[in-house]
Amino acid sequence: MSLGQGEERGRGPTPREFRVPPMEAVHYGPGAFASIGELSARHTGRRAFAVISGSLVDTWIDQSLRDQLGGRLVGVYHRAKEHVPRACVLEAAEEARAVGADLIISVGGGTAIDCAKAVTLCLAADIEAREQFDDHRVRFTYPATLEIPELPQQVIPHIAVPTTLSGAEHTELFGVTDEKRRAKDTFSHRKFVPRAVVLDPVVAAGTPEWLWAASGMRAVDHAVEGILSAKHMPFTDALGLEALALLTGNLRHSARNPDDVEARTNCMLGTWLSIFALTNVGIGLSHGLGRQLSAQFGILHGLTSAIMLPEVMAFNAEQTRPQLRRIAAAMGADVGLCDDAEAAVQAVATMRRFIESLGVPHTLSAVGARREELDLVVEHAMSDPAVADNPRQVTRDQLLRMLQAAW
Amino acid sequence: MSLGQGEERGRGPTPREFRVPPMEAVHYGPGAFASIGELSARHTGRRAFAVISGSLVDTWIDQSLRDQLGGRLVGVYHRAKEHVPRACVLEAAEEARAVGADLIISVGGGTAIDCAKAVTLCLAADIEAREQFDDHRVRFTYPATLEIPELPQQVIPHIAVPTTLSGAEHTELFGVTDEKRRAKDTFSHRKFVPRAVVLDPVVAAGTPEWLWAASGMRAVDHAVEGILSAKHMPFTDALGLEALALLTGNLRHSARNPDDVEARTNCMLGTWLSIFALTNVGIGLSHGLGRQLSAQFGILHGLTSAIMLPEVMAFNAEQTRPQLRRIAAAMGADVGLCDDAEAAVQAVATMRRFIESLGVPHTLSAVGARREELDLVVEHAMSDPAVADNPRQVTRDQLLRMLQAAW
Repeated sequence: MSLGQGEERGRGPTPREFRVPPMEAVHYGPGAFASIGELSARHTGRRAFAVISGSLVDTWIDQSLRDQLGGRLVGVYHRAKEHVPRACVLEAAEEARAVGADLIISVGGGTAIDCAKAVTLCLAADIEAREQFDDHRVRFTYPATLEIPELPQQVIPHIAVPTTLSGAEHTELFGVTDEKRRAKDTFSHRKFVPRAVVLDPVVAAGTPEWLWAASGMRAVDHAVEGILSAKHMPFTDALGLEALALLTGNLRHSARNPDDVEARTNCMLGTWLSIFALTNVGIGLSHGLGRQLSAQFGILHGLTSAIMLPEVMAFNAEQTRPQLRRIAAAMGADVGLCDDAEAAVQAVATMRRFIESLGVPHTLSAVGARREELDLVVEHAMSDPAVADNPRQVTRDQLLRMLQAAW
Repeated sequence: MSLGQGEERGRGPTPREFRVPPMEAVHYGPGAFASIGELSARHTGRRAFAVISGSLVDTWIDQSLRDQLGGRLVGVYHRAKEHVPRACVLEAAEEARAVGADLIISVGGGTAIDCAKAVTLCLAADIEAREQFDDHRVRFTYPATLEIPELPQQVIPHIAVPTTLSGAEHTELFGVTDEKRRAKDTFSHRKFVPRAVVLDPVVAAGTPEWLWAASGMRAVDHAVEGILSAKHMPFTDALGLEALALLTGNLRHSARNPDDVEARTNCMLGTWLSIFALTNVGIGLSHGLGRQLSAQFGILHGLTSAIMLPEVMAFNAEQTRPQLRRIAAAMGADVGLCDDAEAAVQAVATMRRFIESLGVPHTLSAVGARREELDLVVEHAMSDPAVADNPRQVTRDQLLRMLQAAW
């Protein structure tokens, strides 16, 4: 989550442009999934193709999808693998093309949703072979050159039903792994934003505690880094602060109590708010370092947030005191009598306590990182676009010290 | 601002649907108006027709519009009258039709923007005579029947550049007055939401103090009633609270210092946030009573908010204490040590002080209302759709007492 289309890099240019995500509706609450048939009809889906997580095959969710859509469901793909390899996408796209899909429905975690977005790319751009992806991936050269290819034509609508808190359902971005280059490429276009999103806590009740907590921690990171971004603005600040209140107030409890539909709904709403308009402001070092840690050591994204976010908040504290005060207050810390410097310290401490209470691993040593490769992570992070939006300029040495502090 | 399309009436149904306004972008900050030429080109405006406030004719704004658009500006209408009579709309629409307009640009207050929306209706629905408006107006029967006519085809895009804080540029609603029935009808459709909005404090610098303050008070009312609505939700709560902070922190100062571009920008941003997604939750009694007071006595809408909002907040206090606590905090009141009941009292008191500090009339007697007609206002308010979303059921007697308290 970092690339806005055609957005300017730099420190708070005026005037600003805010782009509204081209999503039509978000349906939420227990039972919202029962509207998927009606929603498909509204989006003219006569030939709907579903991409669902493998873990959902033969569950009531799978069955409900088939019951609601009946003959309008012309195919289901459930073999998407983690990190979305090109081979999977090509396989799914071939099936979707063969049945003449005019609507994609995704149900599952970030993998299923990203695979579904990638299928819509393949159909729109006639991608039938792995090397064709190269024409469409985003290319970034540090610090300011971002090439985002145009799309030749309309993409078919996509309705996303997430079961984790990855936030993939709200964004124009997705990642696909090139198995040959062993690289995860980013693809980005407003046309990839799902047309409608269904947030149903009952559908998400089967998501395991660790995954719910870790993906929710990623959403917390979206909210915080959006607010701390050098390009932050009132619209995203407002949503980010409410997201923080919802997530930090409900994530721990709802991870341990998957059937508390209210708490799970609140986490899904928090995720939505944390990421809804985030491309307008960009994110920062916790995402930039996190992506590279994830690539180097295979660490789950939410865990990189648990590991790095407090260090990054502390690093940026002097430049972002007023925002950190608001973050602390949104998380429930009593900072009314603190000055800004004290409130900033409180924000970092509150975040550390929250992460410890979540019960997810939150040090590099705990997730199997290799000390001797941290230099490499730093090297790669320096050319990650997220670094450019960080509120404080950063050197290689500083990055390395942050990683060591998170050991 | 009260009618959502096809939305359910009632107390917090689950699951909920949130509809994202179909706006593409908001451009804001000093100098944003300089992008109107480029924006017009982006929205395929080869034949742009402008509706501008009469007060802007021959100003630098008028000139800049002509300079930026050159030959792509095919007509300018500047004779829209207050309350947008059908005759004006027909006149403007005839001019726009004659020149084959494919884009509407409005620059001015709520009157110019509503007139521009009405012109797009006339072009889309082939309205050429006054009685044809009747087929398209919204009809409401208390308490729950809302008929919103469909539109036969696409409306041409509209770019709105407001000079007041009316918020008309962000909504799907507009009002047109039927001179014969002496009634202001409401028209509503997602297709009437402007495609892009330009918020430029320099363009708004000429707006007089009283109008800036009064229209901003209306935006405060949007924010508060959205948060207090029986159907409030986290997305709109978040934006509404930030809107309140921006408006109450900047409105008084920016009314008196029109050239403080930062304060004026903040008020425009607050207005945007106060109304952006408001159709999802509806509003309440202050709007319902305000509309009728405005119709009966010709009181400016913002002034009805200054008069009624504190009374309505007090009336709803017992049902909305947690929301009133957040409202008080957003307005800067120190409620950390208060219980919810005390915080609610603080919220009302803070709002009263804010309104008094604004320097706008804020009693019914001060704006020329007639005591003997208050019964009639109550009668009409009971069949205003805004009354249905109020968090507390209301009787005729209670409405009358509120009006008397505001005398």
